[in-house]
Amino acid sequence: MILGINGSPRKANTELMLDEALAAAAGKTGAATEKINLRRLTINPCLGCFKCTTPGGEDEDAGCRVFRDDMDLLLPKLAACTGLIIASPVYFGGVTAQLKAFMDRTEPLLRYGVGRWKLGLRNKIGAAIAVGGNRNGGQEATINAIHHFFFIQDLLVVGTGPDPDPGCYLGAAAHTGLDPETGSLPRNAVTGDPLGLRAAGIIGRRVAEAAAMITPDRG
Amino acid sequence: MILGINGSPRKANTELMLDEALAAAAGKTGAATEKINLRRLTINPCLGCFKCTTPGGEDEDAGCRVFRDDMDLLLPKLAACTGLIIASPVYFGGVTAQLKAFMDRTEPLLRYGVGRWKLGLRNKIGAAIAVGGNRNGGQEATINAIHHFFFIQDLLVVGTGPDPDPGCYLGAAAHTGLDPETGSLPRNAVTGDPLGLRAAGIIGRRVAEAAAMITPDRG
Amino acid sequence: MILGINGSPRKANTELMLDEALAAAAGKTGAATEKINLRRLTINPCLGCFKCTTPGGEDEDAGCRVFRDDMDLLLPKLAACTGLIIASPVYFGGVTAQLKAFMDRTEPLLRYGVGRWKLGLRNKIGAAIAVGGNRNGGQEATINAIHHFFFIQDLLVVGTGPDPDPGCYLGAAAHTGLDPETGSLPRNAVTGDPLGLRAAGIIGRRVAEAAAMITPDRG
Amino acid sequence: MILGINGSPRKANTELMLDEALAAAAGKTGAATEKINLRRLTINPCLGCFKCTTPGGEDEDAGCRVFRDDMDLLLPKLAACTGLIIASPVYFGGVTAQLKAFMDRTEPLLRYGVGRWKLGLRNKIGAAIAVGGNRNGGQEATINAIHHFFFIQDLLVVGTGPDPDPGCYLGAAAHTGLDPETGSLPRNAVTGDPLGLRAAGIIGRRVAEAAAMITPDRG
Repeated sequence: MILGINGSPRKANTELMLDEALAAAAGKTGAATEKINLRRLTINPCLGCFKCTTPGGEDEDAGCRVFRDDMDLLLPKLAACTGLIIASPVYFGGVTAQLKAFMDRTEPLLRYGVGRWKLGLRNKIGAAIAVGGNRNGGQEATINAIHHFFFIQDLLVVGTGPDPDPGCYLGAAAHTGLDPETGSLPRNAVTGDPLGLRAAGIIGRRVAEAAAMITPDRG
Repeated sequence: MILGINGSPRKANTELMLDEALAAAAGKTGAATEKINLRRLTINPCLGCFKCTTPGGEDEDAGCRVFRDDMDLLLPKLAACTGLIIASPVYFGGVTAQLKAFMDRTEPLLRYGVGRWKLGLRNKIGAAIAVGGNRNGGQEATINAIHHFFFIQDLLVVGTGPDPDPGCYLGAAAHTGLDPETGSLPRNAVTGDPLGLRAAGIIGRRVAEAAAMITPDRG
Repeated sequence: MILGINGSPRKANTELMLDEALAAAAGKTGAATEKINLRRLTINPCLGCFKCTTPGGEDEDAGCRVFRDDMDLLLPKLAACTGLIIASPVYFGGVTAQLKAFMDRTEPLLRYGVGRWKLGLRNKIGAAIAVGGNRNGGQEATINAIHHFFFIQDLLVVGTGPDPDPGCYLGAAAHTGLDPETGSLPRNAVTGDPLGLRAAGIIGRRVAEAAAMITPDRG
Repeated sequence: MILGINGSPRKANTELMLDEALAAAAGKTGAATEKINLRRLTINPCLGCFKCTTPGGEDEDAGCRVFRDDMDLLLPKLAACTGLIIASPVYFGGVTAQLKAFMDRTEPLLRYGVGRWKLGLRNKIGAAIAVGGNRNGGQEATINAIHHFFFIQDLLVVGTGPDPDPGCYLGAAAHTGLDPETGSLPRNAVTGDPLGLRAAGIIGRRVAEAAAMITPDRG
């Protein structure tokens, strides 16, 4: 299953990109896909208590020991996927705080995890999507931040692959434009960015293709 | 006034680094300093509604039109400072979600702002501090993310300056070490990192020195 | 004097951007400007011998002890400037090898220098320009690489400043497009990128403005 | 075959790290390994002429149409490997000019290539090693720069994987220390950095393991 995470608090642009990627992934290998909109979920930011990585707790499989929130729904999905596509709008040159809260709460999946989620993302395929109002407004930095998360979680990371003129090699990058007076992004503006939308499709196919290439048991 | 923002949800390591920087800043030029611990504040994540950058609102000077929370306390401090030091522990290769929520909510200070906070950080001096459990665990990426915020907000950005062997040129980077079994960071572990603590002092002096060099009116 | 360094081996796109920046810098404050095209110079790559940072050499002021090449012409210009704009095309997600060779050979200007070039770039204003064939093809990474050089050399680093819709906040970023079949960049294609060219002007004015704000002696 | 490229102009530190990685790769899966020291080769920097990506040339399989140099030896090795480990010392926050010259000259391997080298690195496994004199002196940035190259060349990129306390998640990072007076790196200083050397072994095993997991034909 190819899992897509949408880190935008708004409807539309970033979700349209992720939809494009997931549709392309399904079309490439027939893989099942699932989309998570973080804007519909409650995920408290990590407090850095490290209880989730401390052996001997009463409920090691619970993941977080502090918050019972929607991360409980996401951990099984993350552990079940074979490919993971994370999409974020560019907020101040990086991922949204909402997406970062999700990332920070994946600690139980780490090598330091103590329960059943430990190494739950290992050897999955990861790829990133970023949507910016400015043309070079942090799309690369946002993708790099998502990649850093992937490397920490031990995924194999792919870029846009061998298609010509992908716009961005690191991942799919869109440019919605912004209102020069207010700096706001028009809803659905990404529909006017064929380069970005095409790249989303490329990244979806690339994740599906790479996930199908992997036989982790041979590792 | 040199303002320090601590993005850690925990007491200790990152705050110790920031304390070192602010003390050095004060010692260098006699500048007043102030420290903000985000862990004591409530800052809701930005919803991307762009109301704060839309002209003609009833209360343009209010900053955010959605949330009345502790950002109301921070906007005047940001507008008043001449230097800004932002410190974060490294969480999954970047700033904490709590610090990112703060950054994302500074939208009223942008060039797109419509009220009295507009361009409130322009031509201030900015510098960054990162504290990681791993030695090269994302300190550079975390500092880069803070720098990206600074560039968007139109600060002049400084690194650790001309002291020999600063550990990191981009900003002050500490390495606390971590428990190899649990991945946790011992509280106060940064006291065992003289290189990191010295760099925090360097960065504090550098910010104070650079802030004293600037005469924005001449621009 | 505002110094511009062009790291492209080709005529045209990157140089056009740098010309735009230098013209804008001169127009803003009347500053003198000078442009260096690295393609016309011979700069051998650094061998990492550290002779230039070893005290007690016979000719400490010579800079490099290994190569007598065109770096001899550049060191005095670097030491004399008050602002430095470095422009590079994006080659494989970063600066050209030719520009990197130049950067690596600035070792005598470092804090570790032993002769008259030591700290020659300290407290100057630095800004970056990147020109890519792909839209998000490494412009941010290229600017970051130039910034890293600036931080090591102890400059104050500025982005595109408070103009609305600068395309990129980190520095001036252009998108020339590329031939989808050959991946080549049309000569002068940047003339078809008004956003990029405008950003070059912004960055030039920003460097001139910031350089005029600095009184290093007060530091 | 796992190919290692050493971008250092000096003997010792970076090569020791690469040796450690290649030995670990061989030990993990019995893969053949080969090491290339760029310091022994002549690789002219790319002139950006795009002749290598222009169809219809007389000798499309030649790679570069301008320089007959040691890239002719490297293209077949790159096309033949299943894993690629690139190691660089940190020079001014990034890869050496010598390594960048190598990267820039791999244009014939790109999707835009016209001869037999086209897509020669596609679906190989890539990983990076960086060796810095400063503790956080650009190791992350150097690894990111190598990763950017990998993404452009369509590799699957891996970090240090699930071992605890890898020092750096992005790749293997060493810290040699430097002479605080001269900024020089002692030869073989990396032998005093067990964390870095261990990470080099981790990265070698990770590349071998991942390369053995891939069946590109299934893609």
